[in-house]
Amino acid sequence: MAKEFVKDVTAMEDDFAKWYTDVVTKAELVDYSSVRGSMIIRPYGYALWENVKEALDQRIKATGHENVYMPLFIPESLLTKEKDHIEGFAPEVAWVTHGGDEKLAERLVVRPTSEVLFCEHYSNIIHSYRDLPKLYNQWSNVVRWEKTTRPFLRTLEFLWQEGHTAHATAEEAQEETIRMLEEYAYICEEFLGIPVVKGQKTEKEKFAGADATYTIETLMHDGKALQSATSHNFGDGFAKAFNIQYLNKDGKQAYVHQTSWGFTTRVIGALIMVHGDNRGLVIPPRIAPTQVMIVPIAQHKEGVLDYAYALKNSLASSIRVGIDASDKKPGWKFNEYEMKGIPLRLEVGPKDIEAGQVVLARRDTGEKMTVAADRVKEVIHVLLETIQRDMFDKALEHREANTASVTSYEEFVTLFDGKNPGFVKAMWCGERACEDKIKEETSATSRCIPFEQESIGNTCVCCGKEATKLVYWAKAY
Amino acid sequence: MAKEFVKDVTAMEDDFAKWYTDVVTKAELVDYSSVRGSMIIRPYGYALWENVKEALDQRIKATGHENVYMPLFIPESLLTKEKDHIEGFAPEVAWVTHGGDEKLAERLVVRPTSEVLFCEHYSNIIHSYRDLPKLYNQWSNVVRWEKTTRPFLRTLEFLWQEGHTAHATAEEAQEETIRMLEEYAYICEEFLGIPVVKGQKTEKEKFAGADATYTIETLMHDGKALQSATSHNFGDGFAKAFNIQYLNKDGKQAYVHQTSWGFTTRVIGALIMVHGDNRGLVIPPRIAPTQVMIVPIAQHKEGVLDYAYALKNSLASSIRVGIDASDKKPGWKFNEYEMKGIPLRLEVGPKDIEAGQVVLARRDTGEKMTVAADRVKEVIHVLLETIQRDMFDKALEHREANTASVTSYEEFVTLFDGKNPGFVKAMWCGERACEDKIKEETSATSRCIPFEQESIGNTCVCCGKEATKLVYWAKAY
Repeated sequence: MAKEFVKDVTAMEDDFAKWYTDVVTKAELVDYSSVRGSMIIRPYGYALWENVKEALDQRIKATGHENVYMPLFIPESLLTKEKDHIEGFAPEVAWVTHGGDEKLAERLVVRPTSEVLFCEHYSNIIHSYRDLPKLYNQWSNVVRWEKTTRPFLRTLEFLWQEGHTAHATAEEAQEETIRMLEEYAYICEEFLGIPVVKGQKTEKEKFAGADATYTIETLMHDGKALQSATSHNFGDGFAKAFNIQYLNKDGKQAYVHQTSWGFTTRVIGALIMVHGDNRGLVIPPRIAPTQVMIVPIAQHKEGVLDYAYALKNSLASSIRVGIDASDKKPGWKFNEYEMKGIPLRLEVGPKDIEAGQVVLARRDTGEKMTVAADRVKEVIHVLLETIQRDMFDKALEHREANTASVTSYEEFVTLFDGKNPGFVKAMWCGERACEDKIKEETSATSRCIPFEQESIGNTCVCCGKEATKLVYWAKAY
Repeated sequence: MAKEFVKDVTAMEDDFAKWYTDVVTKAELVDYSSVRGSMIIRPYGYALWENVKEALDQRIKATGHENVYMPLFIPESLLTKEKDHIEGFAPEVAWVTHGGDEKLAERLVVRPTSEVLFCEHYSNIIHSYRDLPKLYNQWSNVVRWEKTTRPFLRTLEFLWQEGHTAHATAEEAQEETIRMLEEYAYICEEFLGIPVVKGQKTEKEKFAGADATYTIETLMHDGKALQSATSHNFGDGFAKAFNIQYLNKDGKQAYVHQTSWGFTTRVIGALIMVHGDNRGLVIPPRIAPTQVMIVPIAQHKEGVLDYAYALKNSLASSIRVGIDASDKKPGWKFNEYEMKGIPLRLEVGPKDIEAGQVVLARRDTGEKMTVAADRVKEVIHVLLETIQRDMFDKALEHREANTASVTSYEEFVTLFDGKNPGFVKAMWCGERACEDKIKEETSATSRCIPFEQESIGNTCVCCGKEATKLVYWAKAY
């Protein structure tokens, strides 16, 4: 019986991309519009983002950062001040050329990222070592002129936060870069229930204008990787391009050292592809807009709705609880809240009320249990924590089962020819030529040089020369 | 002695516009950038906005609305679907014409407001009376190509929320329009401490595409009015242009009735110009990022800093409290926090510690008082509420002192020739011609037809014909 409800969702084994699109639309996370490549984030999708955002914003503030807001537009001349930066972004920016009826004297870019605006501002407000560090963050929309788009994963416009900091020393900038990467890892693992691999990007994959880029990489159900957040150490490159100098304690002019770090709506895509199943979304309790949905059974019978509402009110102080008292059939309600991935369903009908019990159903495992009514609050609290932990453990198990250590290039190529390649750990010589060759021949890219290095061999998996680093490779979104 | 600290701020009596600019920059609310007409909202300014936003967001959610996010760009063909709407906005939009290196087949507008996107979405998701009402809200940035700009008051880009709702009946839409205007009034009066006049805009002043526009109008220190938020009833005009129909309970197709309502960063400008003085900002406690700033006196003496930090910790659970333990002189600190408008300053030095007391200084009145250390938390709580109320009362008194009832056109013109014209209540015939004449001859505009109507005469102040309405007139920002 259950099956007929989900007949509209393509099975992920049959067509993963189609499954993804089915889920994001049927769970009402997004809708399309006549704006190419952009998405409408619907109430349920936005509530999810608000919960993730709030959790991260608290961590950003707790680590001493302050929120600011920079302009949406960037004059062309400002964007081009740092050479690598403009080269990286020029192909993918939207240009404003007219205001009202007038052609502009200078074209404006719709921000793809705001480094240059922060740099200009910092050059105005930083004068002395007393002004350092500056620890700013911005929540905003950004635009990148992508050709192929997919909701959350790659869109013309997306929402994010971008942190931009300025420090007196290179050491402080490096500490900040890693600190914020760790915060991102914390949010992903503890709130989104997604295990991450932390590491450094290769020169080829680093951010335009950065000295070093760090990343958290996650593995999706289909064996592809998703770069889930990045943190960059800029050294003093931008400071020199924008003349951000300060008087140090010795009375000398010195350049600041800068970082930037970003976390986007893309993680909602990761959430879907790490936890979802063929019945729809599965949302970890800590970020679930609704943690428990009450579905009254035989609600037309006397006392059922009163009982259900009283139960809702008794839970509402510490649990995000909803109730569906509409005239839809319970089966349809079950289907809808499974599609939306609500962690727990609470059923209560006349027989339950008589027996002084309710039924709880876990979305993640499908497990159903009968609980005494006077213990329900306590049980739910424990269950929500259990579900949160179990979801992380299951995702970690999936990742470990789909991470291979490979030493021969033949095996490497064969793996990436397969349907669900996963992460491949392999040694690398450090040369760009091997990365290029691997990408050309397998479509895999270096995801990161993980902080946790192991030696699984002495030679580069591609060229056979001496290896310097273990690298995580994957096909990626 | 105090005077020398504030010598950098122009007195508002001498040059109000210069005073305003001095305050927004010296209180570090905003900074300028190379982006014409845009502002950088600095940490203190953004923290203020976050507090206002949070208060309003809670009310928006409590009244059953859900947050969503719509695309930044609007295709030209979509914007032009509703005739009045495009006529109103065409002169002030920014056009995106290129993406990367390619010229776009269709130009995109950077949203000046999002009616058309909500309408397109509603036409996709509304099918039946069961889908109504739809009560959506969006927090976002918008762009209007203004020629003359001033931080917060009129900028190329600003932050706001825009609510967009669809209802089954005209009555429900009208109720919603007024409900949200009342919410705006509540936030202005209860949080920002700014008294408002609620009323309806004339046909001339209403929103492009609306059947009726309602507004809250506030009076600044310089006798000019500021439109502080608006709420629009669209009737079924947009529904017809975008074909938003639903199957009603009688099984017939019907058009929805829509509203929209917006509240922007502009209110920060109102806050400055209603409460500020020649020493800088004065912030109402409920939205103050810091409500109490502790300034240790003779902090090098043993025990002072320990005592001050212990005090801070004991207050922090229920009060937003800061401490300035930097090596600046206390006088400089006093000046800085007065400039930033922090409601209460708490001074504590060796003698106070010995006497078991602290000194509290109110920003709004300058009053200083000595308080027993063991009562300080309780006293602060009471004081913050008192300050909030006193600031509102003072602003209301100012508005009442600067609101005139006028029956002769000569008096009307003379008043608007003066330096601080304020609100002028005068009767009006209802004809556009009189509004146009008044604007041309006095620069004053009709601010609103207030909900609280009084009859102060029978004839139009301008043409002498029969009057239909009392109108608030003012020069406006």
